[in-house]
Amino acid sequence: MEQHSVEVLLQVFLMFTAAKVFGLAGERLGVPAVIAEILAGVVIGPYALAWVRPEAWTLALAEIGAIILLFDVGLEQKLTTLFRVGWTALSVAVLGVVVPFFLGYGLMRALGHSQIESVFVGAALVATSVGITARVLQDVGAMQTVVAAVILGAAVIDDILGMIVLAVVSSMTAGRVNYLHIGIVTAEALGFTIFIVLAGKRMVRRLAPRVAQVASRSPDPYFPLALIICLGLSVVAVKIGIAAIIGAFLAGLVFSEEELTPRLRERTHSVYEFLVPFFFVAMGMQLDLRVFGERNLIYVALGVTLLAILGKLVGCGLGAYRLGWRQAFQVGVGMTPRGEVGIIVALIGLSLRTISPAMYAVVIFMTMATTLVAPPALKWMFARPPKSLD
Amino acid sequence: MEQHSVEVLLQVFLMFTAAKVFGLAGERLGVPAVIAEILAGVVIGPYALAWVRPEAWTLALAEIGAIILLFDVGLEQKLTTLFRVGWTALSVAVLGVVVPFFLGYGLMRALGHSQIESVFVGAALVATSVGITARVLQDVGAMQTVVAAVILGAAVIDDILGMIVLAVVSSMTAGRVNYLHIGIVTAEALGFTIFIVLAGKRMVRRLAPRVAQVASRSPDPYFPLALIICLGLSVVAVKIGIAAIIGAFLAGLVFSEEELTPRLRERTHSVYEFLVPFFFVAMGMQLDLRVFGERNLIYVALGVTLLAILGKLVGCGLGAYRLGWRQAFQVGVGMTPRGEVGIIVALIGLSLRTISPAMYAVVIFMTMATTLVAPPALKWMFARPPKSLD
Repeated sequence: MEQHSVEVLLQVFLMFTAAKVFGLAGERLGVPAVIAEILAGVVIGPYALAWVRPEAWTLALAEIGAIILLFDVGLEQKLTTLFRVGWTALSVAVLGVVVPFFLGYGLMRALGHSQIESVFVGAALVATSVGITARVLQDVGAMQTVVAAVILGAAVIDDILGMIVLAVVSSMTAGRVNYLHIGIVTAEALGFTIFIVLAGKRMVRRLAPRVAQVASRSPDPYFPLALIICLGLSVVAVKIGIAAIIGAFLAGLVFSEEELTPRLRERTHSVYEFLVPFFFVAMGMQLDLRVFGERNLIYVALGVTLLAILGKLVGCGLGAYRLGWRQAFQVGVGMTPRGEVGIIVALIGLSLRTISPAMYAVVIFMTMATTLVAPPALKWMFARPPKSLD
Repeated sequence: MEQHSVEVLLQVFLMFTAAKVFGLAGERLGVPAVIAEILAGVVIGPYALAWVRPEAWTLALAEIGAIILLFDVGLEQKLTTLFRVGWTALSVAVLGVVVPFFLGYGLMRALGHSQIESVFVGAALVATSVGITARVLQDVGAMQTVVAAVILGAAVIDDILGMIVLAVVSSMTAGRVNYLHIGIVTAEALGFTIFIVLAGKRMVRRLAPRVAQVASRSPDPYFPLALIICLGLSVVAVKIGIAAIIGAFLAGLVFSEEELTPRLRERTHSVYEFLVPFFFVAMGMQLDLRVFGERNLIYVALGVTLLAILGKLVGCGLGAYRLGWRQAFQVGVGMTPRGEVGIIVALIGLSLRTISPAMYAVVIFMTMATTLVAPPALKWMFARPPKSLD
């Protein structure tokens, strides 16, 4: 234990400290924490300073981090927001998933990549990371506008659609694409999602008071219960052939109502702050930046990034055309940042060897670029007084 | 990732769920959570149901759990309590460490065990786990008595002495005991402790406002800072040849003042609730109960347990004789429960192969027995109205 323990503790210390130091520096420079933490992983990882390298236990820790991350994302969803601007949000979300997917898929096929690798890259362009947009909207005081309501509503649906796309691609083993299989997995993922969201809420609503009664001495009995359900649904998700994080996300959705679990979000966030950095740092550790020196990959990366932006502008913009073109454009820009889900798609692709390290690097590049581009664009567009929701 | 991930997530789910279910059942039956979680590990571990087995990543997770546990123990220390009943508490703590150590060491030597194994078993009898006693004292409304103040004060010193004993034994490699080496390590451990406690508080007091200023957007910048210092001191502790958890404990001591870090204890406790169960479950997983079937080991276990109780009754009782014999006896009983630190000593001994699986089992048995015996004894003794502090 002692010999091994030095290595484990030193790597845990280096990964966590690098994440927080880069995060703090990023905050000063206006770079989102996600990006800063991935960069921390790149810098201390095996392809740069080589202070740490991915090992079985590092990846296990990163995986637990991903579970906590998606549980937290689920907890943050406000289903009530969704219903305020339901149909517009739905069309924004659906078109914002379909258009980028086919743009990305098409580019990859045109460049001669295999069908399955093209599917993975397309899937990585799908899901919006709305956290950054939400923060910018808050900063410019536009949180009460129609545009903000549509963006936040669409982001909820987008996350669920992104999960379904992820469920489908994660069930694909290296090889050819089987349409029947895709159909079955889609049905499974949809069924699982609908079942958990509908039945889960009810079960928790019945279970929670009983647990609170039995564990009357615990300061907060919901927290362990929520973690058990989160881990349990992650296992079930894997067992039925979809990604573990979908289970965690659905568990988060189930617990996403304030009145059930007053302090759950806060407590989850404490665990998040400790464990999620390991996920992003481990992600950066697996990124070999040297691939950009070869085979004009940087042009592919720029092309994919351009299509990622265009896909959301066109798809989400069309979905929101009822609001008027200026507002529709704002929605499109607001939906541009990609985050965790896209990277997870790429990471699963990498581990299944269905996408190459070069395409993994392209997806990370696209994620970073879309996340960095959106905030200044949004701030510029909201300089003129926006249309109010009321 | 996906194939490995099923195993990892399933084991994480099983370990966490077993810990919480056993913990809840234990709470109903009046069994402390520590004991219940170790039992959970025994039941699902390789020597019983064999649902899980210790692997590199499980042990890494358990180790991070131990770090968080000792950080939390450090955070909970109230140095002000100590000064209220200083000298009595000091003599209770010192005699309560010395007497059980030599009783345990003597028994092992008399039974023909090697010097180093005897030292480890003696060391495992040293440290008090005061959490259980504190809770019982609260339950019987005796928290404001002299006895309670002495017990809590002595427990602080006891923890620090226990850490020094642990530092010394953890630096011993399998083989013979080197007294010069013990002297050097004791000096190092004492120096490290004193330096961190004195200089650490000042450094944190200067550093914290600056970090708060730089990380002005973070909801609680102290939490990551505290975790970085906790992990960093753990690494330093290992590097200078003492146990990692001593560094974590000292980091906790440094941050143990309310005004510096208002929400730190709460946030640490959220991480604690998720990660510490892995430590206790992993501990249980390494316990082979079948050893009790062999070589009359159960008599050795009962003998060690008896000496563990006698050692604290005599040592702590002598230390508290100024309070009168009845109160001195109450102090002795209150100091009886052993906890994490004793088990960690045994675990380190097991991993260094300086103690056998049989002696590891004996130590766990002693820990469980002392923890189970003390609460009813305390309740019975406090049935008569106690002497008040004021």
